[in-house]
Amino acid sequence: MNAKLFVCTTCRAGEPVVEGQPVAGTRLYDTLKAAPTPHGLTVTPVECLSACSNGCAVALSAPGRWSYVYGRLAESDAPDILTGAAAYAASADGLVPWRERPAIFRKQSLARIPPQEP
Amino acid sequence: MNAKLFVCTTCRAGEPVVEGQPVAGTRLYDTLKAAPTPHGLTVTPVECLSACSNGCAVALSAPGRWSYVYGRLAESDAPDILTGAAAYAASADGLVPWRERPAIFRKQSLARIPPQEP
Repeated sequence: MNAKLFVCTTCRAGEPVVEGQPVAGTRLYDTLKAAPTPHGLTVTPVECLSACSNGCAVALSAPGRWSYVYGRLAESDAPDILTGAAAYAASADGLVPWRERPAIFRKQSLARIPPQEP
Repeated sequence: MNAKLFVCTTCRAGEPVVEGQPVAGTRLYDTLKAAPTPHGLTVTPVECLSACSNGCAVALSAPGRWSYVYGRLAESDAPDILTGAAAYAASADGLVPWRERPAIFRKQSLARIPPQEP
């Protein structure tokens, strides 16, 4: 089963938009795509995760697992995001033990949603 | 297809816990359950939607549709929550036209997550 890491590419993270320059969410997505992708994970761009006041934002989901949304992220968080996403992708139900979650996942959760029934 | 309205029953919404009295999330859940449930919707209690700093919180999800999480809700929002959830349950993809969403759904979105692939 494949886990998805959705990255909001329209997040401005409170920065003014500068014409011709990528917004913060696009920069985060580019940084995540440039790194090796963990096994069982797909990094997918999304236009707006509706977490605009807490951008940059990413979401993790997979069939049969809890989904999570994290916010207030930056490009410098990319390594930790991928570490946390790898643990999620390796989990059966999306519930990674608390201590194995990176600090940004422990402290910057915006929400989680229970698994969908098949 | 059945849509789920998940209600966090552990949200305290910034109120102090009073022994023997239900917390704000439980009161919201009880209020929602006491009202007629819209067609195609199931109201389900959840212990923690990880939106603790924005409680009370609810989530909407259904197979093949976008999921949504809303926060900063109260018992008095129950009628609007059910109206918005009914529109969601009647939608094909979870994307209810903006003008048909109740104000609390337009203004108090915490996050949304793209549909899962089958």
